[in-house]
Amino acid sequence: MTVMNHQIQLASLPSEKLAPSHFRLAQVPMPTAGEGELLVKIRIISLDAANRAWMQGATYRSALEAGQVMAGGALAEVVESRAPGFAAGDLIFGDTGWQSFAVVKASAVQKVQAREPLSHLLSIYGVAGLTAYFGLLNVGEPKAGDTVVVSAAAGSVGVFVGQIAKIKGCRVVGIAGGARKCQWLKDELGFDAAVDYKAGGLAASLKEAAPKGIDVYFDNVGGDILEACLFRMNQGGRIACCGAVSQYDGAPPRHGPRGIPGLIVTKRLRMQGFILYDFAAQRDRALNELEGWVKSGQIKVPEDVLEGLEAAPGGLIGLLAGENFGKRMVRVS
Amino acid sequence: MTVMNHQIQLASLPSEKLAPSHFRLAQVPMPTAGEGELLVKIRIISLDAANRAWMQGATYRSALEAGQVMAGGALAEVVESRAPGFAAGDLIFGDTGWQSFAVVKASAVQKVQAREPLSHLLSIYGVAGLTAYFGLLNVGEPKAGDTVVVSAAAGSVGVFVGQIAKIKGCRVVGIAGGARKCQWLKDELGFDAAVDYKAGGLAASLKEAAPKGIDVYFDNVGGDILEACLFRMNQGGRIACCGAVSQYDGAPPRHGPRGIPGLIVTKRLRMQGFILYDFAAQRDRALNELEGWVKSGQIKVPEDVLEGLEAAPGGLIGLLAGENFGKRMVRVS
Repeated sequence: MTVMNHQIQLASLPSEKLAPSHFRLAQVPMPTAGEGELLVKIRIISLDAANRAWMQGATYRSALEAGQVMAGGALAEVVESRAPGFAAGDLIFGDTGWQSFAVVKASAVQKVQAREPLSHLLSIYGVAGLTAYFGLLNVGEPKAGDTVVVSAAAGSVGVFVGQIAKIKGCRVVGIAGGARKCQWLKDELGFDAAVDYKAGGLAASLKEAAPKGIDVYFDNVGGDILEACLFRMNQGGRIACCGAVSQYDGAPPRHGPRGIPGLIVTKRLRMQGFILYDFAAQRDRALNELEGWVKSGQIKVPEDVLEGLEAAPGGLIGLLAGENFGKRMVRVS
Repeated sequence: MTVMNHQIQLASLPSEKLAPSHFRLAQVPMPTAGEGELLVKIRIISLDAANRAWMQGATYRSALEAGQVMAGGALAEVVESRAPGFAAGDLIFGDTGWQSFAVVKASAVQKVQAREPLSHLLSIYGVAGLTAYFGLLNVGEPKAGDTVVVSAAAGSVGVFVGQIAKIKGCRVVGIAGGARKCQWLKDELGFDAAVDYKAGGLAASLKEAAPKGIDVYFDNVGGDILEACLFRMNQGGRIACCGAVSQYDGAPPRHGPRGIPGLIVTKRLRMQGFILYDFAAQRDRALNELEGWVKSGQIKVPEDVLEGLEAAPGGLIGLLAGENFGKRMVRVS
């Protein structure tokens, strides 16, 4: 029997809202590894809002095109190595795409040390946890007593931003969609307050939740929520710009938030974008600190794991609609 | 004969464009200094776009109200001191308002050392020069070889931003209104290129003037020019947010620039506001360095001096319309 590879391809590029019809399941021959490459078996696929952004044009990776295997980061196990430094059985993280097997350039992936449960390598010990860690601590620079606000607070990064800010002695306000998520942030993750942006009256709710203003805003969404937070920022406040998920799934916005640059000038704000790569040198230290907090129970690790490759398209569409609680991923094997 | 004080009062607050009718000239009794206060004679008034911003609401100073003497910074000479540390003849800089004489709290003004010509204390050795110095060097952080773009380049701050960036080995592009100003920036101040935003085709002109993209953008204007620069920023670029003069004189804009926060995230940009006060500890060092550059001829100091208190309203209105070349001020006595 010939082993075949299964993959989810991007059938067409969405012009507005992403739908299941933009994807197709395909069965293709197994790929073979060339010199400097690895054949890997995908274990767990990471679903991220960035997957959707890649369909809109070049970001920090080149734009996706119709007909390609859908791109996406995953945890995978090396089946065959044709590159020095890698052996069968090693775990790697890289952009394998949504498929059962992949051939990847060894230079483009990162070897990762196994930890249990394996899924933590895609949440707290992966991009989500490290993004929360560096974005909050190195870009947001919270001090004890500061008010820290995070949007998409129940999402993969937000759940950790809020918990790390609590560890640092801050008042933590999460912005999320729906009363159930807001309750969960307070009851399960220890947030001091939560604002349901779907309930309307965002500015007033934010004022109530952050009566002393906002010192650090960790922005995962952009758009109206960024604008509302800008107007509540305190003098010298910091905005860590992590993502703009409100703007990924649909037509691009016609204008940016009001108050820029006026409020940046008068309040001496700092708005800063970042990606993990900027902090590569501090990665090991960060992972050790995060592990300490997980083991001591100071950080809970909520995960939302779907089963089977074919669950990925619906999983991503649901993620963009905000249905996940914590990091969403797809277990493939 | 009783000596009277002459002042220019804000007759009414402008709702849109500032006009001469918003001001009135008044003759009032001479003020007298109380304990801790100084009676000062105004020498040179500084005209600044910020004067207009104060009419729109509280910024880093409280909002102006109709009927008050028009607020504004000036260089003044102490006539009578009722505060320790000040004596008749001392020079001070402070918010004296637009008048011949003023009583100011000694704690609210800054004693300044006389330099010749006195007008330099309001340009290169004053707020304009120090704002250019700290905004460019401490916030923009240019490196040799970087492309630095400055808007309102022929304005009080812009003329120094460009010249300091040249000293630091950068390629310098000025954005200004009108062909005459653009030619002047290149011929007189040594800018490498200048873009006339009034000529249309801003994005294309900017691309031509900054073919390698923008590393540091010193923003004095906000609005469409900020937006155009955002789209030309290089990875890791810095935007020093110094002012939003495009938005001071008229109704507030309905929306901010497109590309925020999307471009901030994907290009890892930093946008940062600042005021001079943040850098008070480094002030003397900065003044010494600026003086060295002026004496060696590396920095030219263009100034635009109007004569007589009554020239102030028209001078400010003209400044907002961009008619000045370099720092505009009004010599009162």
